[in-house]
Amino acid sequence: MAKEITPRSEDYSQWYLDIVRKARLADNSPVRGCMVIRPHGFAIWEKMHDALDTMFKQTGHVNAYFPLFIPKSFLSKEAAHVEGFAKECAVVTHYRLKNDPDGNGVIVDPEAKLEEELIVRPTSETIIWNTYRDWIQSYRDLPLLINQWANVVRWEMRTRPFLRTTEFLWQEGHTAHASKEEAMEETLKILDIYARFAEEFMAVPVIKGIKTPNERFAGADETFCIEALMQDGKALQAGTSHFLGQNFARAFDVLFLNKDNQQEHVWATSWGVSTRLVGGLIMTHSDDEGLVLPPKLAPIQVVIVPIPKPAPELMAVADKIAAQLRAKGISVKVDDDDQNRPGFKFAEYEMIGVPVRLGLGQRDLDAGQVEVARRDTREKSSVPLDTIADHVAQLLDDIQANLFNRAKAYRDAHITPVNTWAEFEDVLENKGGFVSAHWDGTTETELEIKEKTKATIRCIPVGNAEEPGACILTGKPSMQRVLFAKAY
Amino acid sequence: MAKEITPRSEDYSQWYLDIVRKARLADNSPVRGCMVIRPHGFAIWEKMHDALDTMFKQTGHVNAYFPLFIPKSFLSKEAAHVEGFAKECAVVTHYRLKNDPDGNGVIVDPEAKLEEELIVRPTSETIIWNTYRDWIQSYRDLPLLINQWANVVRWEMRTRPFLRTTEFLWQEGHTAHASKEEAMEETLKILDIYARFAEEFMAVPVIKGIKTPNERFAGADETFCIEALMQDGKALQAGTSHFLGQNFARAFDVLFLNKDNQQEHVWATSWGVSTRLVGGLIMTHSDDEGLVLPPKLAPIQVVIVPIPKPAPELMAVADKIAAQLRAKGISVKVDDDDQNRPGFKFAEYEMIGVPVRLGLGQRDLDAGQVEVARRDTREKSSVPLDTIADHVAQLLDDIQANLFNRAKAYRDAHITPVNTWAEFEDVLENKGGFVSAHWDGTTETELEIKEKTKATIRCIPVGNAEEPGACILTGKPSMQRVLFAKAY
Repeated sequence: MAKEITPRSEDYSQWYLDIVRKARLADNSPVRGCMVIRPHGFAIWEKMHDALDTMFKQTGHVNAYFPLFIPKSFLSKEAAHVEGFAKECAVVTHYRLKNDPDGNGVIVDPEAKLEEELIVRPTSETIIWNTYRDWIQSYRDLPLLINQWANVVRWEMRTRPFLRTTEFLWQEGHTAHASKEEAMEETLKILDIYARFAEEFMAVPVIKGIKTPNERFAGADETFCIEALMQDGKALQAGTSHFLGQNFARAFDVLFLNKDNQQEHVWATSWGVSTRLVGGLIMTHSDDEGLVLPPKLAPIQVVIVPIPKPAPELMAVADKIAAQLRAKGISVKVDDDDQNRPGFKFAEYEMIGVPVRLGLGQRDLDAGQVEVARRDTREKSSVPLDTIADHVAQLLDDIQANLFNRAKAYRDAHITPVNTWAEFEDVLENKGGFVSAHWDGTTETELEIKEKTKATIRCIPVGNAEEPGACILTGKPSMQRVLFAKAY
Repeated sequence: MAKEITPRSEDYSQWYLDIVRKARLADNSPVRGCMVIRPHGFAIWEKMHDALDTMFKQTGHVNAYFPLFIPKSFLSKEAAHVEGFAKECAVVTHYRLKNDPDGNGVIVDPEAKLEEELIVRPTSETIIWNTYRDWIQSYRDLPLLINQWANVVRWEMRTRPFLRTTEFLWQEGHTAHASKEEAMEETLKILDIYARFAEEFMAVPVIKGIKTPNERFAGADETFCIEALMQDGKALQAGTSHFLGQNFARAFDVLFLNKDNQQEHVWATSWGVSTRLVGGLIMTHSDDEGLVLPPKLAPIQVVIVPIPKPAPELMAVADKIAAQLRAKGISVKVDDDDQNRPGFKFAEYEMIGVPVRLGLGQRDLDAGQVEVARRDTREKSSVPLDTIADHVAQLLDDIQANLFNRAKAYRDAHITPVNTWAEFEDVLENKGGFVSAHWDGTTETELEIKEKTKATIRCIPVGNAEEPGACILTGKPSMQRVLFAKAY
């Protein structure tokens, strides 16, 4: 067990905070609920950004940028939306400070009061649909497939680094379409991209599903999501894709002339993932020694450590191996620090989650070998120097696959079908994970179950099988099982 | 002259606004002084981001992310800084809205007032140096070479898309060093990167210089800049790199243990370029037909237009050429629109600044030729089909070089040494550009010249030659010429 990391078995929540701090991913800031994303944490987010941005562009999306501020009145235009977002906003009321006449620094200048307050965007549907009104006249202007990478602010009462912060970074896609079918197709296309990204890059298995009306995005007709399972048995909503129907087009008068020469309201989607993904990544793979990262998102994939010190002969070999690996597109750090001992360095690289560590000692080299340590299983092996580059490339693929398979095995073992209320409570309390149970389809029952157990309906899986049954709480008839879990 | 573009000769200022609108680079927004960056404008910024980010990383810098909000009291900690930035800030005073009891949408909840107001960052020195206090203990923690890509807000009274907006996007580097020399070296290293980026990517020649104390960044000991010249003879500050001395370390108590085991304040730099660069790019190269882009920053470098329509035979050839160009890393659009006529399309691609257009007509193809039109000179030529890819690759390099040389010739012809006040006024009024003149070194004189002519001292060029002379206004002794200009 690494120094200063609380074991998961002891306190999972503290373990998470310890990892975030000790792997230098994020720090608290003096601004309530806002974090500082440190270089190592930000490098992971950059990797996520690059992979997702490529997937969006390959499917015809382009990036743009809309204002940080939203006029207060915009929030009120879509009835459901205002209910969902007005409660937790940062509000700009003034535009100037002045010197305190009493000499105590600066104060807000009361004469610089805005006529209409500005809201720091909690999400950008309103300002974007207000803009789309000018951009869309005819079906020839559609579809509009726009994404934005931005910061947003939601005034959260209880925050946790990455998982729930007042300010966070995200991407928000906002698309406009000429038909309901096309908008729904887009909603599902993005859901697939999110699921593929989570599984192929993050090595996090996810369930694609539909939210209940109670859990729907404020202003959406339908919200789809990907749900992941953390090591403590709690679920994490990792991304959402919303079919917005014509709600925002109606609220902002966005009409287009269709092929039949008739005015019609535009159909919409919106979708987003955020720095919350970094939190999900940490919680899925890491262990009591520190961060564990899938190679595809690791800022440094391989570190080469000369043992015991960076002597010239060892550094020459290290540089040569590094060059071979870089030629394969692998990111490598050669450790040239001569202050710390190997044991300290090993612990440090384990802490920050470097997937593969190569140890170069003179005795190994004399035998034509390199010591290879993999972070996921912490196994070590000796590998011939002349095949090291190919070996490491393969090993990175193996680690990526192993992390996914391990997480999937855990997740699959934690989807528990139950048929009685006693079982339901027992599994939630003692086993955790997703509980697959019948539900009578009412918000009332959903809320009562949440009240009794803290579990929410995470989703109705896409392509769910029909199966007649009785609601776990009320016994009323149900046509399908849904997934319950306690969640972040 | 393109439709709806005001000629430069008639009204340069309106011409700029027309280009921004007609090339679909940005739109006004309902939020005062904030713009919407449209996909085509944002794609240019993304290219700038990628090139600069690569240059920063190649020189050892890493990215991080600090909070959007700054506690009001932080601004007061550095005396000069507060004077410079407190005047034009967006101030968050509340964190919740509620339904208006009178039924008129939402109002600010008076009970959700913050104890200490938060400022939307105008720049991040204060919050970052407050954080660095926790990150820096010893010389081993230095240097800290951190950059952030972010949005910032300065409440500007007079705004212009890209050139001066209330919210803008930028990067801000904030580095910490163990010695004055090293911090100064960093300041100049970044200045070189900015100059290299401007000249090699933007094809904009710049003068590297030092700002006078009056034009210095609030809180800096020395501000370096790159200054460019626009087609109307006005200068544009395109980037700044600040040597901050120990000012912020003192204000935020950031001390380190040096190699001699003594506590010392840390040395600092900060540096930034913003979406203002997009404005400078537009104004340097564009013409009365629309946007002109250097190939290295053009989102689409080559467009292939089948003439008169996307017939299958023509599209087959277009796709083949596109594949050859893409294999060379060139971004290509094949126009498959069958609604508009070639003339309309040509004007449109000229408007949005695609550097090279290939026209594919059956008659040309029968002759084994392609029509090649370059955007910078608007010249057309016929090129053999079998060497088209090599020709286009070379042409893109030629256009990049031509734009730089053209801008440099204009700039060089507009640095005018003058020795009398009459000449000074005459050149500023009738010729424009930089005026190289003697100045007595006082802020008083600098301000009086600005008052009389609207010209400011843009910079004292780096490596300026010593030359005894007499101040253009006061006749007092001067040891060097400085560059004056009217500026954006």
